[in-house]
Amino acid sequence: MKEPEGGVCAPRGFRAGGIRCGIKAGGDKRDLALICSDTPCVSAAVFTANRVQAANILVSREHGKAGKIRAVIANSGNANACTGQTGIAAARRMASMAAECLGISAGETAVASTGVIGVPLPIERIEAAVDRLAASLDRGAAGHDAALEAIMTTDTRKKAAAAELALPGSAAGPVRIGAMVKGSGMIHPNMATMIGVITTDAAIGAAELDRALRRAVNRSFNRLTVDGDTSTNDMVLAMANGAAGNPLIAPGGAAYEAFAGALEALCVKLARAMARDGEGAARLITVTVRGAASEEDAAVLARSVAGSSLVKAACFGADANWGRVLCALGYAGVPFEPERTSVRFAGASGNVEVCRDGCSVPFSEEDAKQILLEEEVEIRAVVGGGPGEASAWGCDLSYDYVKINGDYRS
Amino acid sequence: MKEPEGGVCAPRGFRAGGIRCGIKAGGDKRDLALICSDTPCVSAAVFTANRVQAANILVSREHGKAGKIRAVIANSGNANACTGQTGIAAARRMASMAAECLGISAGETAVASTGVIGVPLPIERIEAAVDRLAASLDRGAAGHDAALEAIMTTDTRKKAAAAELALPGSAAGPVRIGAMVKGSGMIHPNMATMIGVITTDAAIGAAELDRALRRAVNRSFNRLTVDGDTSTNDMVLAMANGAAGNPLIAPGGAAYEAFAGALEALCVKLARAMARDGEGAARLITVTVRGAASEEDAAVLARSVAGSSLVKAACFGADANWGRVLCALGYAGVPFEPERTSVRFAGASGNVEVCRDGCSVPFSEEDAKQILLEEEVEIRAVVGGGPGEASAWGCDLSYDYVKINGDYRS
Repeated sequence: MKEPEGGVCAPRGFRAGGIRCGIKAGGDKRDLALICSDTPCVSAAVFTANRVQAANILVSREHGKAGKIRAVIANSGNANACTGQTGIAAARRMASMAAECLGISAGETAVASTGVIGVPLPIERIEAAVDRLAASLDRGAAGHDAALEAIMTTDTRKKAAAAELALPGSAAGPVRIGAMVKGSGMIHPNMATMIGVITTDAAIGAAELDRALRRAVNRSFNRLTVDGDTSTNDMVLAMANGAAGNPLIAPGGAAYEAFAGALEALCVKLARAMARDGEGAARLITVTVRGAASEEDAAVLARSVAGSSLVKAACFGADANWGRVLCALGYAGVPFEPERTSVRFAGASGNVEVCRDGCSVPFSEEDAKQILLEEEVEIRAVVGGGPGEASAWGCDLSYDYVKINGDYRS
Repeated sequence: MKEPEGGVCAPRGFRAGGIRCGIKAGGDKRDLALICSDTPCVSAAVFTANRVQAANILVSREHGKAGKIRAVIANSGNANACTGQTGIAAARRMASMAAECLGISAGETAVASTGVIGVPLPIERIEAAVDRLAASLDRGAAGHDAALEAIMTTDTRKKAAAAELALPGSAAGPVRIGAMVKGSGMIHPNMATMIGVITTDAAIGAAELDRALRRAVNRSFNRLTVDGDTSTNDMVLAMANGAAGNPLIAPGGAAYEAFAGALEALCVKLARAMARDGEGAARLITVTVRGAASEEDAAVLARSVAGSSLVKAACFGADANWGRVLCALGYAGVPFEPERTSVRFAGASGNVEVCRDGCSVPFSEEDAKQILLEEEVEIRAVVGGGPGEASAWGCDLSYDYVKINGDYRS
């Protein structure tokens, strides 16, 4: 699978742009983005499970129902959450302003917002800037980069990827998928404080796109935890414009599997990047559970370990305190076999078994420490003889997480 | 309600002691405790919900079934968890050694352990010390203090209480209840890394004691969260020896209500003390939810807020970021009415409403900061018009939590 340049602009027929309109306090950071397709799209979206839903989520859910979203306008610096009817009116206004500039209907436009909760969105600043935003749209990597910068908050790295793949049974050229995500705190399974925008030039039906997106999100962003807090604003949107000219991807066929597999791989890559960029994180922690009764059970167990404050703090301190891994498996809420459970810490420098059959085994603390000091650490648990396996991603819990979140609004 | 001195030794007919036997690394800290009644008891106990259960829990569950526990031997410095059959044999040995010294049966003896997971318990050190332990038993506050010291790990404060109350309808003198707890990390609803020992001289049946204990634990220790980690070793044990000579407390009568209410108040007091002593905690956070559909819903909502890393970090930073409170209510998993929700921060210096009907209201950041800097902060949320209300207790998330848990074993 090739990795083309350009992120969300890698697929044909998409443009992106990002500017500063003055929502983010101080500095000269971009805070307003637009990503759109030249032609109509089919779309699919996954939204936060939080019962408190930001105004943009309510509006995007409504617009997304028809499966025809072809543009998304996004701001950072303000979540437009807990802002009441005024907030909803502001989110609608964002959609209609973007649609007007692009000559499409407001119903074809989604709205994403991220930032502080409970502060009224300064819609007049967006209003004053929207023409400039539309004028900034660009078909190349520059447009993608500007849009991505404009949705970042405490993110320290740009998180984007793209893939090119030939679809089995298609005489047309390869199709492309591009994606950008933001998110680094308030991140927990069932969608992070994340905005994810996925573009593709593949020709695919809305139902198949929806199915592929849900599978991909379930195996990637929903297996990610930074701090256990599920946000009010999470949204992952996929738009497919068919510009690649492939025959429409049929349900369940080889082309569908190829497309869905590529989409999943892309999302997993970005979920890992989000964990690595978790607020204050010094290292990426991958927890892999095997031998569970089902994939879903394995995922629940893996997320429980990845989300344990004590496991995270032990990783920060490079302390091979595997008892905390067993403990976190134990309170995950799904069955497994403690007395058949083994745990191994693995990294680039090797791997060390620390627990077998639920009990301690002798191991070199020095080797374990070496592994835990690496930038990417894997915790491998085998929890029985079942067929279920899954990975989850998280990060260590550091002083900097506390620092960043002790004074976020100031 | 009077508060007599002496903790678990306040009720008549109980003795306690604590010594150093050498399980805890370095220093001269006590690490082995014994608490017992002179005469037979009825008993009740609540154990961890973790699927990984320490050896002492398995043994204490078995012995506890008959409801006749009258002594508990406890060690700190080693959790005797994930230690396999050897661990179970060690826990049994602890019970039988203590029983032998006291001239009672092993089945009347419970075992509590707390400390690092996955390290074999050095049973020979306990064996060498058990006669000295029995000789140290004392009927007064000194015995209580020594026993309490011997079960502490990262605790920075002694957490104990006692109550004396006259039972309605009893011509005998008042009854007393005494309690000690330990626990400061790996603490989350469904029982903390806690050991709780409750003694009483009230005459009460095993079924009533069990019912009163479960209600008290549900409204106290199960509404406590320090770090979201439910331990493998949690246990709260209550022993009643009837030495007060009151008529047996009848099910559901006024005497039962008085006894159960006093027990609950005692447990709430100790749960608050545990939250205040949470690892690295600078302040106690009480979250009170009103207007939920039921008490249970209110408790789930309150615990979700008390357990949110982002709320905890905001409290550490004295940042009135109320959006995180709304967000944590939103992912608690039970219904409420976001658009009717109000939030108030309260402390000794006053209280400030920060959110009404789910939206921001103007408030003085200076006043809010003043409140959040206090040692005890209350977050009050009204989430609708229902009858359900409950409180939960937690603490802020500080640099010191990360420090303590980054290097626990070393």
